[in-house]
Amino acid sequence: MITVLRIGHRPYRDKRITTHVGLVARAFNADNILIDTKDEKLENNILSVVDRFGGTFQVETGVNWRKILHSWNGKIIHLTMYGEHIDEVFNKITKGVDLLIVVGSEKVRREIYEIADYNIAIGHQPHSEVAALALFLDRYFKGSELKIGFNGKLRIVGSQKGKIVIEKKA
Amino acid sequence: MITVLRIGHRPYRDKRITTHVGLVARAFNADNILIDTKDEKLENNILSVVDRFGGTFQVETGVNWRKILHSWNGKIIHLTMYGEHIDEVFNKITKGVDLLIVVGSEKVRREIYEIADYNIAIGHQPHSEVAALALFLDRYFKGSELKIGFNGKLRIVGSQKGKIVIEKKA
Repeated sequence: MITVLRIGHRPYRDKRITTHVGLVARAFNADNILIDTKDEKLENNILSVVDRFGGTFQVETGVNWRKILHSWNGKIIHLTMYGEHIDEVFNKITKGVDLLIVVGSEKVRREIYEIADYNIAIGHQPHSEVAALALFLDRYFKGSELKIGFNGKLRIVGSQKGKIVIEKKA
Repeated sequence: MITVLRIGHRPYRDKRITTHVGLVARAFNADNILIDTKDEKLENNILSVVDRFGGTFQVETGVNWRKILHSWNGKIIHLTMYGEHIDEVFNKITKGVDLLIVVGSEKVRREIYEIADYNIAIGHQPHSEVAALALFLDRYFKGSELKIGFNGKLRIVGSQKGKIVIEKKA
């Protein structure tokens, strides 16, 4: 099981970035996302994608992030450009345990670095937590995540030039 | 040479997403980003990262996207969840030519699909143009992009628990 924990979410400023983090978590095969600040609109945005495109992805906002970190039964991965380079640490990640992937906002408290089992950098350049999460999950699932069948009401069929969306009859 | 073209940028609504697109473009080894709507603040944000962290990445906003598409000397790749799955099309991409990677916003005009040499889906689920660009460039550069030395004033050294930033003396 893979849970994404988003820390430092500010509903007004971060609404779109956190929505992208949530949609990447779902599309790249995480099981759920927990977000520290209560934000019903964000929950509904993500759940509306789940409703239309399928899968069992879950969202919870307004969680106690400290409690989650301290009670996590598995390994904790913190994605940060200050961490160890993914190429150096990836093979050391314990397999077969539940992962909590922590994705911070601009400022991340020292204690997150301390409690994480692995602080992992998707390169050491500043870029995006959205990209970092996608890259990490893509490496973790070795690309297989891009072929999951979510069995949704809507299904997109790839095409060279157009848009093909198949809608399942209720 | 790899150029990213961001279409449909709305300065107020998209400022953070487009900033992330730009930072991903830089960090993942594209050469420059062109953005359709004039947005000096966005330019300055991205250029301040270039100034501190190095490299020769360039930004231009307020470009005529249609003219760029029609005069591009190379191949045009449009990243869209409606396109062909990256696993199916990746090996068909012409090598050794300049690439223009088009990253749209929510609604993308039909003509972009038509003019693109390749419409490529990073999976057929809705997620994020930030993630799509990162994944595409990661596949394109086979992970080597995460190890580029940008020779900036600031350099981050990966570490297990802390933050190590080395500042070059002027």
